[in-house]
Amino acid sequence: MQEDKHKAANARYTIGVDFGGTYVKLALVRFSEKNFKIEGYSSFPTKNYNRDSLIEQLVIRIIKLKAESTYKGNRVRGVGIGVPGRVDFNQGLVFDLTNVPGWKNVHLKEALESKVKIPVLIDNDANLMALAESRFGAAKGYKNCICVTMGTGIGGGLILNGKIYRGMNFAAGEIGHMSISEDGPVCVCGGRGCAERYIGNRYILEQATRKLRAGARSILREQLQGKYSNLTLEMLNKAARMKDMFSLLIWQEAGKHMGTVLANVVNLLNPEIIVLGGGVANAGSLLLDPIRRVVKERAFQVSCRNLKIISSKFRGKAGIIGAALLILTSKEKLGK
Amino acid sequence: MQEDKHKAANARYTIGVDFGGTYVKLALVRFSEKNFKIEGYSSFPTKNYNRDSLIEQLVIRIIKLKAESTYKGNRVRGVGIGVPGRVDFNQGLVFDLTNVPGWKNVHLKEALESKVKIPVLIDNDANLMALAESRFGAAKGYKNCICVTMGTGIGGGLILNGKIYRGMNFAAGEIGHMSISEDGPVCVCGGRGCAERYIGNRYILEQATRKLRAGARSILREQLQGKYSNLTLEMLNKAARMKDMFSLLIWQEAGKHMGTVLANVVNLLNPEIIVLGGGVANAGSLLLDPIRRVVKERAFQVSCRNLKIISSKFRGKAGIIGAALLILTSKEKLGK
Repeated sequence: MQEDKHKAANARYTIGVDFGGTYVKLALVRFSEKNFKIEGYSSFPTKNYNRDSLIEQLVIRIIKLKAESTYKGNRVRGVGIGVPGRVDFNQGLVFDLTNVPGWKNVHLKEALESKVKIPVLIDNDANLMALAESRFGAAKGYKNCICVTMGTGIGGGLILNGKIYRGMNFAAGEIGHMSISEDGPVCVCGGRGCAERYIGNRYILEQATRKLRAGARSILREQLQGKYSNLTLEMLNKAARMKDMFSLLIWQEAGKHMGTVLANVVNLLNPEIIVLGGGVANAGSLLLDPIRRVVKERAFQVSCRNLKIISSKFRGKAGIIGAALLILTSKEKLGK
Repeated sequence: MQEDKHKAANARYTIGVDFGGTYVKLALVRFSEKNFKIEGYSSFPTKNYNRDSLIEQLVIRIIKLKAESTYKGNRVRGVGIGVPGRVDFNQGLVFDLTNVPGWKNVHLKEALESKVKIPVLIDNDANLMALAESRFGAAKGYKNCICVTMGTGIGGGLILNGKIYRGMNFAAGEIGHMSISEDGPVCVCGGRGCAERYIGNRYILEQATRKLRAGARSILREQLQGKYSNLTLEMLNKAARMKDMFSLLIWQEAGKHMGTVLANVVNLLNPEIIVLGGGVANAGSLLLDPIRRVVKERAFQVSCRNLKIISSKFRGKAGIIGAALLILTSKEKLGK
């Protein structure tokens, strides 16, 4: 009973914002030493607002969440925001956002703090996914953790020595743009043979479609009835689980490429754990098994000995949890 | 004058040991806030001693250097040792050494401390090169620095957020075993297409020799008189400086491979500076120019904007300076 009281006294409230390309989600989160609870929630479609009206929406909703909590006697310590792009974390300056037009060099921290009257911190969404997983999720208790989001793009967040590692220009973690083929196909980034060029979801589908068109045998042929462009990752996923050899091989191939790039990351950083999230990672063991096998084949034995490669615990929620955590951890150390 | 006195009072003495495959070098080093001076030196050939007698030699020479300094009234704070292999830094346990037989799982810290009566710290030599360069050398003042030693093997030391980054099993920094070709030739490590497999000094020479045998035109043909196995990196270096196109292309090719692997490191870690050392790096601008060009071509523009890629300042001395520094910096933060 006394312990409960003690815990309640130590509860900390923050607001987390997951600013995605499709939705902006906000949550009031209550943190205790070992857990968290979402106590208020709100969301709106990103595309409905231009930049200035979106900032306005953020202000209105943050103030509302904050008011609900202060009314109950709690102090809300600040707002953490995760965005799909590069951010100067120190200044709270958003350089630009993938798939959200009109967001070049926006001083978002400044714009919000003057209105919401509590501290605002902004970071890249992959960094915050890594933060959430390493504090409360799949990588809890580990000091060196690599989080990879596999979707349209392949992003990465690095927790090194218990802290988010951002690099000189806040541009670290571009795992999808590490090359696995020196003279491979040109990537949108200007590089060659980047991992994303093989296993971004678009490229996985492109490759499968091409093979189907060329006459590959698969149960997907009947399902698609010639409309190969209707192929989705979910269909490949389902077919593979029904032991469709074609689909299994597509995932194995993707796992091989991802395993190759992760073996490189392992040889460079010797992390304790790699956490995979994002749409492509929904393939689960179809992808995880070949990834684990290839990393073990290719990376140093000693670095693989206690290495874990697992799926994200929080999936779509990692962003909002990580954002809410940012306010608490910016001065703390994570991990053991 | 008063400042001088102040400086002297703040002087700190340590012993650095560079335990190499060919020589073991020991130095008594005096550190002030901004500089260092080697005040005593000793060395012996590694091969002359088996493991136990080598440890004995270390003890004798450390005690001698320490005595010389204490005689003058200085306190020697400890001994730092750099070894060519993987080390449990916390325990001072040497797992094994490249090119030095008989060194499997040696508790070197323990063995020495009981005899020399001052603290002993042991680390991998590439880590200590990185430490030396980032404190007093080419990377002075930078928080995120990648040091690469290019020789028989391609090793790496990482300074991240101002501290040596070692990874879970003290195995981080294996830049030479990052693959640049997923299905490339098998490497000694078991991986495929590792950078070292293209630009370890042996492979550079092998490739050049093969081309000469196949009839490539070069001023080296006359110099070698058919004895192609006599080719050295120095000869390739000298010939390239005399504008021998064949030799220039060999360096350009090596620079391209190194640039590809470094672009991957840059996209992952977004460091401020990359420092190149080791025998292969003696080619200087012959290698640096193509490396810089390829990194710029392949890595993210924003990560290249203020990125420096330069030669080691201390060259062969980096190991001993870094080893001596280890004692001072194990509790300090480096960089800005």
